[in-house]
Amino acid sequence: MEITIKTLAAELGLSIATVSRALQDSHEVADKTKKRVLEMAKKLNYHPNPYASSLRKQKSKTIAVIIPEIANNFFSFALKGIQKVVEKEAYNFLVYLTEEDIAKEIAITKQLQSGRVDGIIIALSSQTDSVRHLWDLHNMKIPIVFFDRVCDEIEASKVYTNNFESAMNATDHLIENGCKRIGYFQLSNKLSLAERRISGYRAALEKYQIGFDEELILTCGTNVEENHQRIKKLISEKAIDGIFASVETLTITSYDVCKDLGLSIPGDMKIVSFSNLATAHLLSPPLTTINQPAFDMGMEAASLLFRNLTRYNPHPLVKKSEFKSVLIARESSALTQE
Amino acid sequence: MEITIKTLAAELGLSIATVSRALQDSHEVADKTKKRVLEMAKKLNYHPNPYASSLRKQKSKTIAVIIPEIANNFFSFALKGIQKVVEKEAYNFLVYLTEEDIAKEIAITKQLQSGRVDGIIIALSSQTDSVRHLWDLHNMKIPIVFFDRVCDEIEASKVYTNNFESAMNATDHLIENGCKRIGYFQLSNKLSLAERRISGYRAALEKYQIGFDEELILTCGTNVEENHQRIKKLISEKAIDGIFASVETLTITSYDVCKDLGLSIPGDMKIVSFSNLATAHLLSPPLTTINQPAFDMGMEAASLLFRNLTRYNPHPLVKKSEFKSVLIARESSALTQE
Repeated sequence: MEITIKTLAAELGLSIATVSRALQDSHEVADKTKKRVLEMAKKLNYHPNPYASSLRKQKSKTIAVIIPEIANNFFSFALKGIQKVVEKEAYNFLVYLTEEDIAKEIAITKQLQSGRVDGIIIALSSQTDSVRHLWDLHNMKIPIVFFDRVCDEIEASKVYTNNFESAMNATDHLIENGCKRIGYFQLSNKLSLAERRISGYRAALEKYQIGFDEELILTCGTNVEENHQRIKKLISEKAIDGIFASVETLTITSYDVCKDLGLSIPGDMKIVSFSNLATAHLLSPPLTTINQPAFDMGMEAASLLFRNLTRYNPHPLVKKSEFKSVLIARESSALTQE
Repeated sequence: MEITIKTLAAELGLSIATVSRALQDSHEVADKTKKRVLEMAKKLNYHPNPYASSLRKQKSKTIAVIIPEIANNFFSFALKGIQKVVEKEAYNFLVYLTEEDIAKEIAITKQLQSGRVDGIIIALSSQTDSVRHLWDLHNMKIPIVFFDRVCDEIEASKVYTNNFESAMNATDHLIENGCKRIGYFQLSNKLSLAERRISGYRAALEKYQIGFDEELILTCGTNVEENHQRIKKLISEKAIDGIFASVETLTITSYDVCKDLGLSIPGDMKIVSFSNLATAHLLSPPLTTINQPAFDMGMEAASLLFRNLTRYNPHPLVKKSEFKSVLIARESSALTQE
């Protein structure tokens, strides 16, 4: 005989609705009742439905974390936050690196369709302009949490920072300290995060009635030498006096280029960067950063994922969790004498 | 009928020894003969022995990389090297972090005994003072390559740098530039790597007839604030004029402590560090580093592992691969006026 919710309800003398709510851990049901329902479910070897049952049998006690890059302090601190939660839950996590390559991201997600992991935390690669591979996972009901570089189309929990506001504040800060032509350097023009940051940058320019010049937006790649040449060219040809970098690797290159060109920071060039560099305060000059709370964001992403892993839930939690980044002003963007 | 090497030899009209060598890809056998043997082995569905056969069936096409820490440029560059080889072989790799905790290392290796991966690359945690958990894996014939923080006891392929020589050169460099009391800061006193580095440090002191003072060796932990206090105490109480750090995190803390104490680098304190920090040349002052060829070491470790993964081999390759680190002298250790 197949054990259904109806069987449980009959055995317990409760309504089907109550049993269903108890199994979903609803706050509308008393703890005592929940306990009775769970005990009976266990006794009768009740499985909520075939799919959930097969899921439970397959539990790998492992989650996947897919990130573009590991030599980046933001992602490495985030991993520590994820690790903290994962350990508490007695789970394991596996790190997959896409190296900013959508082909690798697709290959990894294909592989995860086999059920190797119970859930996935992903930060998209800078080249990810289509998320069909993620729809496949989503449609298989493998829980996903999007992290930092989120995807707008898929309805799932997301953890990110106030990108519009942070970019606006950073640009505002540079203008207040005297910049008139600010270059914005990024790794991607495909992510929604990129759009939001550029919107924030533009909003600050508008506030000060500075025209937006598309040619001051530089979208770099992963080749450091190429980035160096392109940044050098832009600085030389466009006479920019400020740099707003969306990622620390482009900031390191910007420092190098300024050295090459004999430009003093902050005298000739002011720099602000999204960065969690451990050495930011020790650089020459110390770097003004927009710090993202990477560790806390990692913990939140893992916590949201576990909300949808640890028990059968026909209505998975979908939460959008926005964290605030903090601008830490240091010498690289300081006001200087004309 | 069971297909053995004898069957193959009879079918092919070759000696058993030749067939055996051909299956081991020996250079003593002509390629043409090897090809014939392999084709026949395939045709007859030959399995070298039951264990190898079960191994082959289980192939996960995945290797594990166990490292202590990810917010460390040495390990993140090494991972890129590993990734390069792994992709070429159409394998995947999973990253496990021990966070310098032997308990986590043991838990991870226990889990890997299930055959989840085909092989393992591991850098020991700084707290690993017993390798029983690794003997278990080794005895199960799961191929292991030790990386950087190697273990002396177990006979397996190892990839590491010339730690004795590097430490001696770094100490020599500090003495040549005027240091008389050099502190050595490390994360572990349990690894063989630590022993070698300290021996190198001592050898340089002896060369200049400087007495060895055990109290100048500081073994730190993973708590940054505690490390800060301990380094501050040592600098204050022991009047050291040089720091040789075995890991970049302790160097960052040393810079901070010098700032706190109003000590100028390199005037009052000279610093050299094992480090692959991308910002070393941009620090104030630029940091003298001992660079380990992390990327190449990662590629070598993965290549050695695949030598023992990709075909049945009763005599797995055991190779010790020593790489040379390079001292890059920058301002943090420069000769200054008295």
